[in-house]
This record gives sequence, structure tokens and C-alpha cells, in this order.
Amino acid sequence: MKFEVVITISLKEGMLNPEAEAIQRAIAHLGFGVDHLRKRDQYRITLDAVDKQEAEKIAGSICERLLANPVIHTYEIEVI
Amino acid sequence: MKFEVVITISLKEGMLNPEAEAIQRAIAHLGFGVDHLRKRDQYRITLDAVDKQEAEKIAGSICERLLANPVIHTYEIEVI
Repeated sequence: MKFEVVITISLKEGMLNPEAEAIQRAIAHLGFGVDHLRKRDQYRITLDAVDKQEAEKIAGSICERLLANPVIHTYEIEVI
Repeated sequence: MKFEVVITISLKEGMLNPEAEAIQRAIAHLGFGVDHLRKRDQYRITLDAVDKQEAEKIAGSICERLLANPVIHTYEIEVI
């Protein structure tokens, strides 16, 4: 069966993110009041799996082996 | 007032995305069946605005002037 999985990778709280800081400054330069900005990467993947549980397990494995660095990232998995 | 806004930037359907293709190949090399992969950038921004409507308008302006390229991107805005 095919499952749609949404994986969201975020930097852990407290990790510096120069890209997000640059964007936040650019928004302030446009004249808008901005307090805080976080950037996350989201992957929407169509996976082969037997059931929802297996799809979730595969997605976890993809995060740990490929997409996320456990030292600096956290990840969320949602099977649709 | 402060509003939390989530902006999601995606490539338009049909645009080539070599990064997503490389990730899809890497997942296949891990031995998982993967059909389709899309990558999106998500920004979570804390904005100053009078009301929800204004927060949405500001977020639209940020997308059009800064985060999205209308030729290749679409964007979604959600005010929380």
C-alpha cells in the first residue's frame, strides 16, 4: 500500500540559525514588526508500506539515517 | 498584538527539484519503496499586527517581496 508521510525537520531550540536570522532582519527592513522566526524543512513522501505503523517506522528510519542530524535536529512524522 | 504565522513555500507542480530527486534516490538506496517526494520550506514567524486579517496581509507581503519567487513558487499562509 501507498502512504503519504509528512516529515518536518527543525533545528533544536537554542541552535543558531544564520539563515533564519538573516530573513528576520530582512523582514524588519521591509518595515514589519517581527519577533521570532523559525525555519523548518518539510518533506512529503509517498512510501510503500504494509500498514500505517510500518509507514511511520520507515519514516523514522529515513529521518535517523538520512534527513536529520540527531545532534542538532528534531523531527516530527505524520502519516496522512 | 502578536500573531504566530506559518508560511509554507512550495515549488510549483512540474518544476524540477534536483535536491528532492537526490533525496528520493538516497531513500531508495536505503531499501525503502518511495514513489514521490516533495520538499517545502516552512517559516514560523511571530508578527506584530492589529488583528488576524492584518497578520495575514503582512505575511502575504513577506511572501511576495522576500520569500517566494512567483514564477516558480506557491505559498500558503496560516495564522494560528
